[in-house]
Amino acid sequence: MKKKKPTVLELARAAREAARILAKASTDAKNGALLVYARKLVKESGPVLKANARDLAAGRKRGLPPAMLDRLRLTPERLEGIAEGLRQIAALPDPVGEVSGMTLRPNGLRVGRMRVPLGVIGIIYESRPNVTCDAAGLCVKSGNAVILRGGSEAINSNSALAVLASESLQEAGLPGQAVQILPTADRRAVMSLLKLNSHVDLIIPRGGKGLIKSVVESSSIPVIMHYEGICHIYVDEDADLEAAARICLNAKVQRPGVCNAMEAMLVHQLAAPAFLERTLPELARAGVEIRGCPKTRRIAPWVNKAARSDWGREFLDLTLAVRVVASMEEAMDHIARYGLGHTEAIITENYERGWRFAAEVDSSSVMVNASTRFADGFQYGLGAEMGISTQKLHARGPMGLEELTCSKWIVFGQGQIRE
Amino acid sequence: MKKKKPTVLELARAAREAARILAKASTDAKNGALLVYARKLVKESGPVLKANARDLAAGRKRGLPPAMLDRLRLTPERLEGIAEGLRQIAALPDPVGEVSGMTLRPNGLRVGRMRVPLGVIGIIYESRPNVTCDAAGLCVKSGNAVILRGGSEAINSNSALAVLASESLQEAGLPGQAVQILPTADRRAVMSLLKLNSHVDLIIPRGGKGLIKSVVESSSIPVIMHYEGICHIYVDEDADLEAAARICLNAKVQRPGVCNAMEAMLVHQLAAPAFLERTLPELARAGVEIRGCPKTRRIAPWVNKAARSDWGREFLDLTLAVRVVASMEEAMDHIARYGLGHTEAIITENYERGWRFAAEVDSSSVMVNASTRFADGFQYGLGAEMGISTQKLHARGPMGLEELTCSKWIVFGQGQIRE
Repeated sequence: MKKKKPTVLELARAAREAARILAKASTDAKNGALLVYARKLVKESGPVLKANARDLAAGRKRGLPPAMLDRLRLTPERLEGIAEGLRQIAALPDPVGEVSGMTLRPNGLRVGRMRVPLGVIGIIYESRPNVTCDAAGLCVKSGNAVILRGGSEAINSNSALAVLASESLQEAGLPGQAVQILPTADRRAVMSLLKLNSHVDLIIPRGGKGLIKSVVESSSIPVIMHYEGICHIYVDEDADLEAAARICLNAKVQRPGVCNAMEAMLVHQLAAPAFLERTLPELARAGVEIRGCPKTRRIAPWVNKAARSDWGREFLDLTLAVRVVASMEEAMDHIARYGLGHTEAIITENYERGWRFAAEVDSSSVMVNASTRFADGFQYGLGAEMGISTQKLHARGPMGLEELTCSKWIVFGQGQIRE
Repeated sequence: MKKKKPTVLELARAAREAARILAKASTDAKNGALLVYARKLVKESGPVLKANARDLAAGRKRGLPPAMLDRLRLTPERLEGIAEGLRQIAALPDPVGEVSGMTLRPNGLRVGRMRVPLGVIGIIYESRPNVTCDAAGLCVKSGNAVILRGGSEAINSNSALAVLASESLQEAGLPGQAVQILPTADRRAVMSLLKLNSHVDLIIPRGGKGLIKSVVESSSIPVIMHYEGICHIYVDEDADLEAAARICLNAKVQRPGVCNAMEAMLVHQLAAPAFLERTLPELARAGVEIRGCPKTRRIAPWVNKAARSDWGREFLDLTLAVRVVASMEEAMDHIARYGLGHTEAIITENYERGWRFAAEVDSSSVMVNASTRFADGFQYGLGAEMGISTQKLHARGPMGLEELTCSKWIVFGQGQIRE
């Protein structure tokens, strides 16, 4: 339809305009757009599936590995799953406009905070095309305009999905340009996006270390980072060993390639003999290579020796470092030294140590008697998520709607002046 | 006492250690340290006043202007004022450990957020020595260790104030190294501090544009910025003109050199004739130079002509840009175009427009019928403040104790695993 592809600057200006309108849109209108989008993904999926077929054909030609082709593939079932995610986002409370903590000051001023959208968000990702829809859904619901830039191998799929999003916004009476996609695989387009400080408020890179590092280094816009996770589970002397075994197995093997999988297991020396004798063979049977400290190897001489570099290492596969510790304090020191602040868990029946671990370990998620694999926006009740932030400022842990907003102070007076 | 000045790295490592202890310190212990500090500032002020005398003598020798010497000067009265600030911080609720939003998930997990300290905060400032005490007080209360670096002209005063802080912490059983000062005026010490990403969690620069710009450009640690403010007041068609005149006069002249003073006044065309005829002479009598748009000058031909560059300009003195607008929408468009998102106000008796302005203007503080001069942590009930952030992420507007913390997710289970 368009005669000419817009420049990145034109696109960002249009996003800023759309953001101003979306910021004051009603919850009904935003939910309406999400529900139309969900319907279109199911009922009008023709162009999306065709675009996806083009991407798949190009990917096969380029020799993409089967696992990557599978991640790229959209099917009516997968689109239904994505649509269900959008319906869930529509069902969540709207964070925008919420006023909290309003107090009456001695001089009669009423001072509180109102939650407002951030404005324009740029999302750079290399994951599956469903990120296009999740990100669009979360941004629209939180009143933000979004500029999407997915992997080049999915450019046709992502464009088709973004077109449906824009049409859905327009059907709901909202600006279609609240969801836009960088219409080119040219890397320079990303680079110029990362410099548009007055048009873009936040950049969220989602993908591997290389992508995130390059975005952080190139961006003059604030970036929320999602670096790797090195999750620890500490099995306390008072652990329910049954539960501990079940949880550690789950945290290691259920999906070892993700950031909330366990990478190191710390076991109290009093629990170690019984626990390790039982659990290490179970882990080994599940295909896990175990690398133990000297004390671990005294109990289970058959396990490999842990190298120094195995502590604080993100294996992302079926490898596990195991260390026997003399106390919870030693475990917490180990975590402070080697952890990256993603997710840690304690397994204990001891009330005091459960709370102390939860309070004192400085990670984005700290768990008692649960698998680290639960560190996830869906599991926490946020609906979809924009990833898991490992930074401390603004957003920490799974990012949902609230993390896509900020707050402003609102002050209501009756003519007060400052003396 | 010390044989050798510690390196910046040694100092930062000590801060990290102290931060881990302070993070789990009781509210009583932290308040105790603040109250001891307040007492020492009043009763043991000898070394501080002597150090200050040295700074003042050096400043006179260097030819510092009288206004700057006055800002540098500490007196028993000023120390009592600083001590009162510390007592107020001690009286505020402790943000650390607060758990919010805990929900019970369908699988039985309890998921909530716990407020925790950031860790180690570096503060780089060029203001009066009282910032040393305010920053130390806010950081200790919020469970953070702090590394302070004030202006070189106040180095003796700041060092003496920091020594008292450390002694107070120790008397309360807390690590003295939770408050440290860069012990050198060497600029390279700041530069190396700004690169210690694994030891320092946040940098807060406080001072002029030059300082902030250089910190932002040099730091690889996250920075919270406090750029200038260009505050607008919009006088609505339904304004109480009496209140509007009082507020605009206050916002412009009570202290024109600060970031929450009014820089531009927008007046609805229906209110303009009566309001401007009355208020502009009043502003002029208070010494304000007025620069008006053509419509303003039709009403008051004696005012100067506003240049294009006067819109969106931070005068920081007794100069005011005045524009007549056709509607609140035009005023909000002007603010969106020229404002910097610091503080804006509407003066109106109209219910609908008051709320719309509060909800739609995207600034860190939005006021109805009050002077922009109220944008301040003390006025908002935060006790002291670490400055006013004009960024959107993490902290927006006046920064108090809560802005010096972050949250983590805590999850309590009964052995749950992810299916």
